[in-house]
Amino acid sequence: MAEPLRIGIAGLGTVGAAVARVLADKAAELTRQCGRDIIVNAVSARDAKRDRGVDLSSAQWFDDPVELAKKADIDVFVELIGGEDGPALACVKAALDAGRHVVTANKALLAKHGVALAETAEKKGVLLNYEAAVAGGIPVIKTMREAMAGNTVNRVFGILNGTCNYILTRMEAEGLSFEECLKDAQRLGYAEADPTFDIEGNDTAHKLAILTSLAFGTKIAAGDIYLEGISNITQADIRAASNLGFRIKLLGVAQRTESGIEQRVHPTMVPTASVIAQVHGVTNAVAIETDILGELLLSGPGAGGNATASAVVGDIADIAKSQPGFQHGPVFGRPAKELKPYRKARMRSHAGGYFIRLTVHDRLGVFAAIARRMADNDISLESIVQHAAESETAQKTVILVTHETTEAAVRKAVESITRDGHLTSKPQVIRIERAG
Amino acid sequence: MAEPLRIGIAGLGTVGAAVARVLADKAAELTRQCGRDIIVNAVSARDAKRDRGVDLSSAQWFDDPVELAKKADIDVFVELIGGEDGPALACVKAALDAGRHVVTANKALLAKHGVALAETAEKKGVLLNYEAAVAGGIPVIKTMREAMAGNTVNRVFGILNGTCNYILTRMEAEGLSFEECLKDAQRLGYAEADPTFDIEGNDTAHKLAILTSLAFGTKIAAGDIYLEGISNITQADIRAASNLGFRIKLLGVAQRTESGIEQRVHPTMVPTASVIAQVHGVTNAVAIETDILGELLLSGPGAGGNATASAVVGDIADIAKSQPGFQHGPVFGRPAKELKPYRKARMRSHAGGYFIRLTVHDRLGVFAAIARRMADNDISLESIVQHAAESETAQKTVILVTHETTEAAVRKAVESITRDGHLTSKPQVIRIERAG
Repeated sequence: MAEPLRIGIAGLGTVGAAVARVLADKAAELTRQCGRDIIVNAVSARDAKRDRGVDLSSAQWFDDPVELAKKADIDVFVELIGGEDGPALACVKAALDAGRHVVTANKALLAKHGVALAETAEKKGVLLNYEAAVAGGIPVIKTMREAMAGNTVNRVFGILNGTCNYILTRMEAEGLSFEECLKDAQRLGYAEADPTFDIEGNDTAHKLAILTSLAFGTKIAAGDIYLEGISNITQADIRAASNLGFRIKLLGVAQRTESGIEQRVHPTMVPTASVIAQVHGVTNAVAIETDILGELLLSGPGAGGNATASAVVGDIADIAKSQPGFQHGPVFGRPAKELKPYRKARMRSHAGGYFIRLTVHDRLGVFAAIARRMADNDISLESIVQHAAESETAQKTVILVTHETTEAAVRKAVESITRDGHLTSKPQVIRIERAG
Repeated sequence: MAEPLRIGIAGLGTVGAAVARVLADKAAELTRQCGRDIIVNAVSARDAKRDRGVDLSSAQWFDDPVELAKKADIDVFVELIGGEDGPALACVKAALDAGRHVVTANKALLAKHGVALAETAEKKGVLLNYEAAVAGGIPVIKTMREAMAGNTVNRVFGILNGTCNYILTRMEAEGLSFEECLKDAQRLGYAEADPTFDIEGNDTAHKLAILTSLAFGTKIAAGDIYLEGISNITQADIRAASNLGFRIKLLGVAQRTESGIEQRVHPTMVPTASVIAQVHGVTNAVAIETDILGELLLSGPGAGGNATASAVVGDIADIAKSQPGFQHGPVFGRPAKELKPYRKARMRSHAGGYFIRLTVHDRLGVFAAIARRMADNDISLESIVQHAAESETAQKTVILVTHETTEAAVRKAVESITRDGHLTSKPQVIRIERAG
């Protein structure tokens, strides 16, 4: 049998501790699958004394993860600290520079420094695996990086944030407000005390940026992503969506268009009968559309200690099966040096259907005026429904669903309608996404 | 750059021609992804002259695929002939014996000879890749063999036959009979002239047998699978399912139980709101449940030249990225010699919910007699509905949905009811499957 593969783990929080437990509990089976033992030789965390449900006494302890990365007797450095800079960046750099393979679950780090780290890894001839960084336990990196070789991707989209999907699912199922569901999500540990990063779409954007690079062979450009969160989604939107045969999901979408690559994160109407519409609660899903394979959808747990640990262990096992010093394909599917600059399509040229919900004064002619503004901007309507608001105020709700049009046209039409003075509150615009 | 990877393709039908086209059309991109060129150096097919939309004039032609496997200047032998024995078996054996990597899409071959072929491949230190053999373009082999390292699988199930799913989807959507939908499937090329192999579940069984081995580390045992096809599914079943919140799918299910491993293929009621219930038409889907990762579902095209070619090209690319003579993990996830004998759970001990549709004489006491037989066999009922048959005959339909019970109890109860003389036609029994 080959020499054991020696692992160093930096970060023993929920995920790190789960990885250590899985490596211990499944040692015999992993040896059978990989043809060699996998041994945790070194660890680093804030608190050396905490009970993590696994015996790590035979591993060398490091207070400083950078020291571990540089000096420990290891083949693979597993970074589970988190954060886009700071110690995570420092220790991953140190590990790669020292010629060690790296496994990380850190989406923020990769979204910001992924290309530079990949260049180092490829120069050093070591692996940089990061299955756990996108959609937790779902093997989307392996699928895009390996299984789809030769495919040209046209679109990749997904539910990449469990917190948002949990909130939207409960809002629909129980008729609760966004605020109530967020509070529950926080109570259950699905949302942070400061939930901004999740609910405003930043977390989804980090993951999407990595998928975009894998899909299109471009440099990662997380800062260029159009971003809209779910905090302004109301029961009125959810009910109207349901009546129209849609469900609202926060999607990250990256799409090849004539004017470049669209990268956007926003609440999205997907057909209720589509597969992705059935992805409930904290579950994640990714759909990939290519020229050869067609449409593929993967759904599963997007977070949680065990699911994330499963992806990390899969990455470690891939290294265990490979020969020392051997590189199993480039980090982002193509050599990092050959990743093309990201050519951004402007959001204004986005083409698609739109859902528009307007609350208007109950006056003669308002309905006609709205229809006129749509026509002025060449927006063809699939449906237009007007009904009285629930309260006995002198206002009505108008819900429009457009055929395919552009973001620019919709914005112009809605601005005109707003200027016309018909609206009693802020208009709501939600993009519709084709989904199988 | 490394030396080119030299490919020999045996079989240039729909899939073989598509593989050759993709390798030619995407040559530059594949080189970028794999770090070396991939060249088709040899081909073999029945008809040398047919136009396949790709220039194969620089490849050496072999009339005999076994000669190609033995003598051509190749690193990888791609078997796309089909059939469980005959030339496919002969040439794959020859290629492995000659120390060449093998890529195949042949589920029948693997279901029968997979373990022996894997032993040869592992002894010779070459790869045997077969992503295309199960669920076409869906990367389920890579997911189970690589991404799920360390996971203990509890259940794997899926829609593995596009013909059956196409027929069931149309029956439900259009209210047509099984026979009408089968005829259409044949006209559209989704079903063979002799459709038995698809509609009676044999094709699903071949694929399930391979997944079972990957899931549980057992020897392949396709012959031990409980088999029931879809030819006796009627509109009455589909409508009753729909009223009860179910959809009927032909599933292959492999499950770890206390008495061994259940392997079964049969029409199955799945909750309409589940993800797998939204998998329509010729699309396939596989769900895998494990202790660490949790529930993962993959859906996508299960057949067709391009989708299958995508999987074959992915397998070839994996070999291109690996070092010559290097083995990337065992063929069925664990070394072939260590695959355990398959321990079969008896179908009679299967535990689950059941749908039972009975057509009965419209006589006093029948309803009570049926309920009594259920109680006698300790079957607890979730619902029991009785309604008049559509025609004005003196018969009624009784539809029962049971809580979890056993196959043995259901069979005994239905036999008793049949013996009681209440039935006017054959009873229909459809198993219900939990699905997320």
